[in-house]
Amino acid sequence: MYPNDASLEKGLNLARELFDKVGRESFDGVGFTRAAYGDSEQKAHDTLIEAAVGLNLKVDVDAALNTWMTLEGDNLGNHPILIGSHLDAVPSGGNFDGLAGVVAGMATVAAFREAGITLKNDITVLGIRGEESAWFGAQHIGSRSLLGTFDEVVLDSAKRVDTGRSLREHMLEAGADLTKIGLGKPLYNPADIHSFLELHIEQGPVLESLNLPVGIVTGIRGNCRCRKIVCKGEYGHSGAVARPERKDTVFAVSELITRLDELWRVIEEDEGGDMVLTFGRFSTDPTAHAVTTIPGHVEFCFDVRSHSSEILMRVENHLVELMDEIGNRRNVSFSYDPFTGDIPAGMDPGLRGALKRGCSELSIPSIAITSGAGHDAGDFSQAGVSTAMLFIRNDKGSHNPDEKMEFADFATGSRLLTWLVSQISNGSIEPC
Amino acid sequence: MYPNDASLEKGLNLARELFDKVGRESFDGVGFTRAAYGDSEQKAHDTLIEAAVGLNLKVDVDAALNTWMTLEGDNLGNHPILIGSHLDAVPSGGNFDGLAGVVAGMATVAAFREAGITLKNDITVLGIRGEESAWFGAQHIGSRSLLGTFDEVVLDSAKRVDTGRSLREHMLEAGADLTKIGLGKPLYNPADIHSFLELHIEQGPVLESLNLPVGIVTGIRGNCRCRKIVCKGEYGHSGAVARPERKDTVFAVSELITRLDELWRVIEEDEGGDMVLTFGRFSTDPTAHAVTTIPGHVEFCFDVRSHSSEILMRVENHLVELMDEIGNRRNVSFSYDPFTGDIPAGMDPGLRGALKRGCSELSIPSIAITSGAGHDAGDFSQAGVSTAMLFIRNDKGSHNPDEKMEFADFATGSRLLTWLVSQISNGSIEPC
Repeated sequence: MYPNDASLEKGLNLARELFDKVGRESFDGVGFTRAAYGDSEQKAHDTLIEAAVGLNLKVDVDAALNTWMTLEGDNLGNHPILIGSHLDAVPSGGNFDGLAGVVAGMATVAAFREAGITLKNDITVLGIRGEESAWFGAQHIGSRSLLGTFDEVVLDSAKRVDTGRSLREHMLEAGADLTKIGLGKPLYNPADIHSFLELHIEQGPVLESLNLPVGIVTGIRGNCRCRKIVCKGEYGHSGAVARPERKDTVFAVSELITRLDELWRVIEEDEGGDMVLTFGRFSTDPTAHAVTTIPGHVEFCFDVRSHSSEILMRVENHLVELMDEIGNRRNVSFSYDPFTGDIPAGMDPGLRGALKRGCSELSIPSIAITSGAGHDAGDFSQAGVSTAMLFIRNDKGSHNPDEKMEFADFATGSRLLTWLVSQISNGSIEPC
Repeated sequence: MYPNDASLEKGLNLARELFDKVGRESFDGVGFTRAAYGDSEQKAHDTLIEAAVGLNLKVDVDAALNTWMTLEGDNLGNHPILIGSHLDAVPSGGNFDGLAGVVAGMATVAAFREAGITLKNDITVLGIRGEESAWFGAQHIGSRSLLGTFDEVVLDSAKRVDTGRSLREHMLEAGADLTKIGLGKPLYNPADIHSFLELHIEQGPVLESLNLPVGIVTGIRGNCRCRKIVCKGEYGHSGAVARPERKDTVFAVSELITRLDELWRVIEEDEGGDMVLTFGRFSTDPTAHAVTTIPGHVEFCFDVRSHSSEILMRVENHLVELMDEIGNRRNVSFSYDPFTGDIPAGMDPGLRGALKRGCSELSIPSIAITSGAGHDAGDFSQAGVSTAMLFIRNDKGSHNPDEKMEFADFATGSRLLTWLVSQISNGSIEPC
């Protein structure tokens, strides 16, 4: 039931070709750009579909334009196993973030096809749309549409960063069927999915620092985010307004950030809680700021992540309290876009245990690891689907052209995935 | 020796015309723009010269292109009294910052001319070049060139913000004689100047809040400034890098600013020291920052002002120490442009006392006030010239189109200036 080495090699050769081809087609001169619900993302789907047709897979496209490429099983009524990830990429990002999970699925089904093995479950390679928040602010658009957890209002509120046009316009233009999106109804019943498996590059230094090719993800942090917070004060001559009269936004926001940094230190060091906190943007107004002008306007953003819903709420509440307190004391005002968030998601313990056994059986050195970043797998987990994630070593971050994945590491993770699918299909593994 | 009301009125009518004409010629649709060593500044000089010729004044232009418009006295060998300010204005600034001081000089000499009074000193109305740092980073270019305190290296290091071209190129293009600039030699010996008098709008709320038209300046704060400080860290995925591994520049700079704000509070509230502190710019990189990206780059600037040289040095030293300490602890590095600064400048006590007597004699309500902002008068004072400054009520700040000066207040200040000149000239007042 497990493909022989030659079949596995055939699958990996296909993987190599797909990385090359999709990468070539989406290289922008600096990095790789695949715009959510844009031509460059579509091109990646087309390239995957071409490969799927070559493997004689069944190809479907759902109403949200996710691509389903299925190696049909023996049709005994078992639920399908989904292997997938997203095909979009941030502007000038890396080639592997997202794509690796889809290609790993293709390598797996290609190996089974080559070995002539018919499994007891359909195996669907899922090419998911619009996971990255970089394009529309909204994230995980494809998986949430599929699972019925996508909020309809976002269709009009979210504008694509490069075009300024709404998600609705872009989805319609790409061919989506919006009569089925955002109504709280899944496009495919989650209860009818056996499991969702996602391979993804790590976006941090853990595996590299331990010299391990693969990590078995224990859970995905939840998050709370605000894309834009505006602090308004009053511009003035830096020499001519005394301290009590100032409405200085840089001091106000700096204090806010410093005090939340202190809360982070307390939660992490004193209480042993899990969180990361980021203010990725802090901008005075370039059309008005100057060395000798009191800054009257600052815009910033906010991102906290944790495995604990309580910590997320505690940090968000403290932020809101501080905006009030500091605003009053420093004579500035804060306004903000709606906060968005995801609750933390655990990976299936049964599948995690199976992956650990698989590593032992295939002699793959690995470690349990948590995911700080969000992934489509989190949405499947939250929708009640048994979910597993594998990380592949990459210490170069992601969302930049320097992200790096050794093909040998990918091959190791891909083989582990193939092993897991064969074990599930022959009944030796059940999710918990 | 003091012009009669009709003569004073004649001078004020000319002032009105000059404000209107220079304003009309430099209005950019939003505010008033008079670029240092640019066409728009030259136009203001031309307009003033035209009026000077109309009054039959002697007109000279020095090597730095400052305009000297002199009502000649009875040539008894007394040193000239200079009344002046700058004619440049920041991009889309107000009409009165600088211009009011030159126009007040014109109103004064016009009144004496109209009254047919010959004074015992030459009275020179000085239209000064390039006072605003907004154009070249460098400030007080005209007055420092005149006084021999301008540093030659700035000719090439300073680039104009709109053209990117050097101060040297712009000065040459405007017709300056650079063989005489920046050599440590004054264009006019400060010891041969009787006094320098500058009328200027206030750039803060003091006079307005006390309902006073005029303030007698006691001194000008010194300053220490850095146009650009760069904090470099490392970009990374906001969910995937743990606290100890982060090189987050927003946290680092926020802490730096918050700690210097605390030093300010201590110096002002606990120790009663004089200072103002401003970080007018705080910018992550708009081409790289994002909600879910750890910010790897921040640029900011620094401006501290005080009447105390010790406090200026203490704050600068603390900034440098903090960059070192925070840089080490947070794994980021700081680099910075050269610090620039001016030492605090006191106004002449004899002239201040005379102005107070003048207010009493002319029934002008006034108050003693300090200048937070720098002015050309500071450079004259530092060069050993007896210097006085008058502030005219304006609580709308400056460097913006909203600055506001009631003509009646200007007229009051202008009359006081005329009174002072007549008193100096008839020998009843001597600087200390």
